[in-house]
Amino acid sequence: VSKQSRTSPPSVGIVGASGYSGVIAARLLASHPRFSLAFCTSDRWVGDSVRARTSAHTDLHFIANAAALDHPVDAVLLATSAEVSLDLAPRFLDQGVRVVDLSGAFRLRDAALYPRWYRLDHARPALLASSHYGLPELFGDPPADARLVANPGCYATAAILAIAPLVHDGLVDVEQPIIVDGKSGVTGAGRQAKENYSFTEIADDVKAYRILGHQHTPEMTQAIATHAGKPVRLTFGAHLVPVRRGLMCTVYARPAANVTQPQIDASLRAAYAGKPFVEVVAPDEATFASVVGTNTCRVGAAVDDQGVIMAVGVLDNLVKGAAGQAVQNLDRLFGFADEGPEGGLDRLTRSAP
Amino acid sequence: VSKQSRTSPPSVGIVGASGYSGVIAARLLASHPRFSLAFCTSDRWVGDSVRARTSAHTDLHFIANAAALDHPVDAVLLATSAEVSLDLAPRFLDQGVRVVDLSGAFRLRDAALYPRWYRLDHARPALLASSHYGLPELFGDPPADARLVANPGCYATAAILAIAPLVHDGLVDVEQPIIVDGKSGVTGAGRQAKENYSFTEIADDVKAYRILGHQHTPEMTQAIATHAGKPVRLTFGAHLVPVRRGLMCTVYARPAANVTQPQIDASLRAAYAGKPFVEVVAPDEATFASVVGTNTCRVGAAVDDQGVIMAVGVLDNLVKGAAGQAVQNLDRLFGFADEGPEGGLDRLTRSAP
Amino acid sequence: VSKQSRTSPPSVGIVGASGYSGVIAARLLASHPRFSLAFCTSDRWVGDSVRARTSAHTDLHFIANAAALDHPVDAVLLATSAEVSLDLAPRFLDQGVRVVDLSGAFRLRDAALYPRWYRLDHARPALLASSHYGLPELFGDPPADARLVANPGCYATAAILAIAPLVHDGLVDVEQPIIVDGKSGVTGAGRQAKENYSFTEIADDVKAYRILGHQHTPEMTQAIATHAGKPVRLTFGAHLVPVRRGLMCTVYARPAANVTQPQIDASLRAAYAGKPFVEVVAPDEATFASVVGTNTCRVGAAVDDQGVIMAVGVLDNLVKGAAGQAVQNLDRLFGFADEGPEGGLDRLTRSAP
Amino acid sequence: VSKQSRTSPPSVGIVGASGYSGVIAARLLASHPRFSLAFCTSDRWVGDSVRARTSAHTDLHFIANAAALDHPVDAVLLATSAEVSLDLAPRFLDQGVRVVDLSGAFRLRDAALYPRWYRLDHARPALLASSHYGLPELFGDPPADARLVANPGCYATAAILAIAPLVHDGLVDVEQPIIVDGKSGVTGAGRQAKENYSFTEIADDVKAYRILGHQHTPEMTQAIATHAGKPVRLTFGAHLVPVRRGLMCTVYARPAANVTQPQIDASLRAAYAGKPFVEVVAPDEATFASVVGTNTCRVGAAVDDQGVIMAVGVLDNLVKGAAGQAVQNLDRLFGFADEGPEGGLDRLTRSAP
Repeated sequence: VSKQSRTSPPSVGIVGASGYSGVIAARLLASHPRFSLAFCTSDRWVGDSVRARTSAHTDLHFIANAAALDHPVDAVLLATSAEVSLDLAPRFLDQGVRVVDLSGAFRLRDAALYPRWYRLDHARPALLASSHYGLPELFGDPPADARLVANPGCYATAAILAIAPLVHDGLVDVEQPIIVDGKSGVTGAGRQAKENYSFTEIADDVKAYRILGHQHTPEMTQAIATHAGKPVRLTFGAHLVPVRRGLMCTVYARPAANVTQPQIDASLRAAYAGKPFVEVVAPDEATFASVVGTNTCRVGAAVDDQGVIMAVGVLDNLVKGAAGQAVQNLDRLFGFADEGPEGGLDRLTRSAP
Repeated sequence: VSKQSRTSPPSVGIVGASGYSGVIAARLLASHPRFSLAFCTSDRWVGDSVRARTSAHTDLHFIANAAALDHPVDAVLLATSAEVSLDLAPRFLDQGVRVVDLSGAFRLRDAALYPRWYRLDHARPALLASSHYGLPELFGDPPADARLVANPGCYATAAILAIAPLVHDGLVDVEQPIIVDGKSGVTGAGRQAKENYSFTEIADDVKAYRILGHQHTPEMTQAIATHAGKPVRLTFGAHLVPVRRGLMCTVYARPAANVTQPQIDASLRAAYAGKPFVEVVAPDEATFASVVGTNTCRVGAAVDDQGVIMAVGVLDNLVKGAAGQAVQNLDRLFGFADEGPEGGLDRLTRSAP
Repeated sequence: VSKQSRTSPPSVGIVGASGYSGVIAARLLASHPRFSLAFCTSDRWVGDSVRARTSAHTDLHFIANAAALDHPVDAVLLATSAEVSLDLAPRFLDQGVRVVDLSGAFRLRDAALYPRWYRLDHARPALLASSHYGLPELFGDPPADARLVANPGCYATAAILAIAPLVHDGLVDVEQPIIVDGKSGVTGAGRQAKENYSFTEIADDVKAYRILGHQHTPEMTQAIATHAGKPVRLTFGAHLVPVRRGLMCTVYARPAANVTQPQIDASLRAAYAGKPFVEVVAPDEATFASVVGTNTCRVGAAVDDQGVIMAVGVLDNLVKGAAGQAVQNLDRLFGFADEGPEGGLDRLTRSAP
Repeated sequence: VSKQSRTSPPSVGIVGASGYSGVIAARLLASHPRFSLAFCTSDRWVGDSVRARTSAHTDLHFIANAAALDHPVDAVLLATSAEVSLDLAPRFLDQGVRVVDLSGAFRLRDAALYPRWYRLDHARPALLASSHYGLPELFGDPPADARLVANPGCYATAAILAIAPLVHDGLVDVEQPIIVDGKSGVTGAGRQAKENYSFTEIADDVKAYRILGHQHTPEMTQAIATHAGKPVRLTFGAHLVPVRRGLMCTVYARPAANVTQPQIDASLRAAYAGKPFVEVVAPDEATFASVVGTNTCRVGAAVDDQGVIMAVGVLDNLVKGAAGQAVQNLDRLFGFADEGPEGGLDRLTRSAP
């Protein structure tokens, strides 16, 4: 049976719909022309109107997280921590439910990396082998039998989209380390009831954090190595900036010999031709303001006479960096293209004030 | 006659005291125990009370820029554009007035760099040879006969203070390019009556700008090469963040063989021992909030297992990055230490709410 | 011929589509299921892609303002200054084009008020008599022969929606002055290339402005007097707050004798029953964050034991306070309800991230 | 013995020096020419360097709150909650230590008001009778035998300074309620580890809070009634704005018959002649930016033709609204004027970047 022959739209549940990414996912799926939003879970808001809490166009009420497994659906989005996803994903898969996981639990192929970067022992290495890394513009559609998609991290999406085509096309000297300098808005840290995320402590401040230890580092390394066809070294410096939404990765890499600006531009344009959610622009046009509220990632790169390529990728950490990309992955798990005749994610995210 | 034998405090004038840096300079010098503020110029505010416009403790009124040369003083601070400084500095020097220039007009030794980076032909190359680069913690006191100090750029100050000691101590592989990723608050651009600096266009946005062409690049390169004892390659990516004050440079460099974290820490601590305006901290403690409103630059560095040193320098772009450092330079031109028994710059900038 | 019998959607042009309100109008109309966006004018961006400049789903390119009159359409939105609207509206009306005007040019019935509040002599008093004040929830549908709708001011919409039902229901002592304290985000001032709207001058600041002279004052007075059935006195204090979007009016009025909180709640709920774009909430739930990006106005009111009613109205100044309400008016000029079976304005503004 | 005959400066301790107001108090007193900072308490930071935590010029380390009573000093500042102050103040007074209390514990003369506004039963009504309300510009020096000063609330200071002179001079019709609309930065709420004070929840938002129930209401009412010489009615609406520091009260009152603008200006100017910390300006010059970082309150008022006086008061909630005013009170408890020949609070707060 072909994927398109269904007569009713696939049903989708969201687990963890009270986090910032979960709220966006609820809005997008409630208005999506090709899916039916079946449930939203939140232990915190259980019983509350989803519309009242999230502005999503739905009459659902939140159910408890534990009730999700009793609710038959075609797919779930897990907007949960890596620990919770590691527990829940296999249980949904066992029920035949397809899973798009927004945590890092299934992004790394090598289970041995989890203790260092996620402080957990990964008990499901087989799922790491079978999961699909859901960065559609660079990793293609999931295989026909895919049931589990690991939705990429927000920093990782921006960095990989900015530099991987240049790596793939041999324009980067991958013998030298690749440097990723990330700047993220505060929603990237999720809902927080901590003094150091209070307005007074964050406003007007900029700071580096998780110095040389951010968990998106191995994910970037793995994805870029895939496009290089060989191992790469990569250093990632994460910084917090006092805005709510938006994320930029500025990637510095060494060019291969004799690389020219036209080659760089051509590489990026070829990689993203026909991809509605990645726009190739001049690096100074890749601004937070140009993408916040949309599912677009803007990328641009330049090479200088000091032997450095500077590539910029920018996106809304809650949309293309989380819930929007999850909907792209859901679309692809069910054989829908990004943009159908009725309009979809692009229309949902771009027509808004 | 020794510098210290004066009986009355040296008199200082500020040219361009209506810019953001000039306003800070006026406040600092009006309250400074060892200088007498003699005049403030501003063509825009001529005749207005300096106190009313700047909150400086003075009864002066602004005079026109052109009137500055008729006003006998011991020294001037030029808070003017490179073009204006290039014209004014020689005229003050000819009158025997010592000059601290906040523009880039006298920072680069090689006049041939000015057309590319400052879009001006430098008609006074002899002054480039005789000017002193006023980064006191790393370039020492000005020579006894110094009359012209080039006050460093804001980004340059942060980047050089963060990485130059490591370069000097042989901990950096200077055969590879050094990467500087800068993030600056908006006052770094000066007073602006342009739509693209309007609140609506800047708030909630982060953007890269002057891609690979920022004029502080050759200044950083020159200063780090001085500490390396050989030429270096350096790439600088500047970014604008939506805060008023504060600036960070994250510097990425390749370590020399077998460099350890204790060596890095020791190098920074040795460089800044006894220097009250540079604090060595862990990189995640080098935040905008920790330095804004003070003359302090915080620096910290870490090395990872990918072959990268990440060094962070942070300062208030209007104080240590401009007016505060200019007062340090003025202190040194007249033989005063940074911190005398009566208290000085440190007390002025730290005791405030 | 009934309004609903058309077979093709009415065509609409936007004059002044490069202002902040015009950009929102372009997005809303390009995605609106019941209108066809025919042109967008902007002398500044003439020839540019509307999609690239505004993210609206359209393949139009901007045309010059002067070209608008040569372009046959069913209706125009004028996102222009009062002076320009006063000139253009009669010319469109003479061509049989319906007009929704976002300026104040046609809001006041009394032409004699224009010199004081708008600094212009109103040469078209007959249009003041025939224009419809387009606050749909309180002033109903335009008459069948209406051709000109005056779209209310942003502050006026919030203040009137918050207090007019209580006035209408006799709960307010209108012998005493009504106080409106307004707080607006910066986009309310439009695009600005002035130093006093620069980020550095606006960020972290709050200020009162146009002290006792804001031009929305007579509009509020007129609308509330209409609901009172007699003249009222009203004072309006406008304040600028450092956010981009959002506006609140806190209205203080004297209660009539023996007014109770349940009467106040009942009055507001009755006024807005079945009105999808006004939500009655507790006053502390009427926050900028609850409405920005939507066409919703939230209102709430409380009465205290000191003899004061405090009513709060909050909205997005660019949507319900400008472009969104203009689309509501356009819907009503063509006989469409606010919310049709295909979804309309509510869906456009609520489904977005 | 006169107050001025001491040979060593009075010693002062700060209880609760880790709150935002306490940190400012530590900076001001550590640099104050006429006091000696003897201790700072903080249970949270006990043992830490006060300089490192607060940037105050002192070599003290934090001691535990409970240790304060064992430490002989001439005076203490209590930067503690009303509950804690109610417990501690009598114990310090019993030791002969003078107390400036920053909480509301001793501001209201009528103990019966405490259960409603502070949710506490006031067990020390005698102290309410003997405490001095420390708003120096309007309530004068404390009596010679005063030992306890109640430092006014931040909103109360701004509102009272703006309107009380007009009330005192008979320019306000006090038969009608006085309306106070307050807008405060977020530090007014103190250090917070709650989600609803997180950056993401506060940034870009404006909201009314404690609707008609803010605890500064009775304090404003009491102080204005004192200046009216009769009871007044007063309603206060508090609003939170997304900035860290700064506070404005816009006060709306009915003028007495035939009040003119010159009378209003004259009343304010007369009230504050010779008072260095209150500046009379046009209402639109009373901005957050004009006072943040200083101990200045700016006030201005206007009367319109609708029968309303609009008076504006603005200050830094942590300085004139808390720690700075506390230092004024301390100065006066020891017989020092606000501004002595060596410079004091004004110089400390105005000379800073």
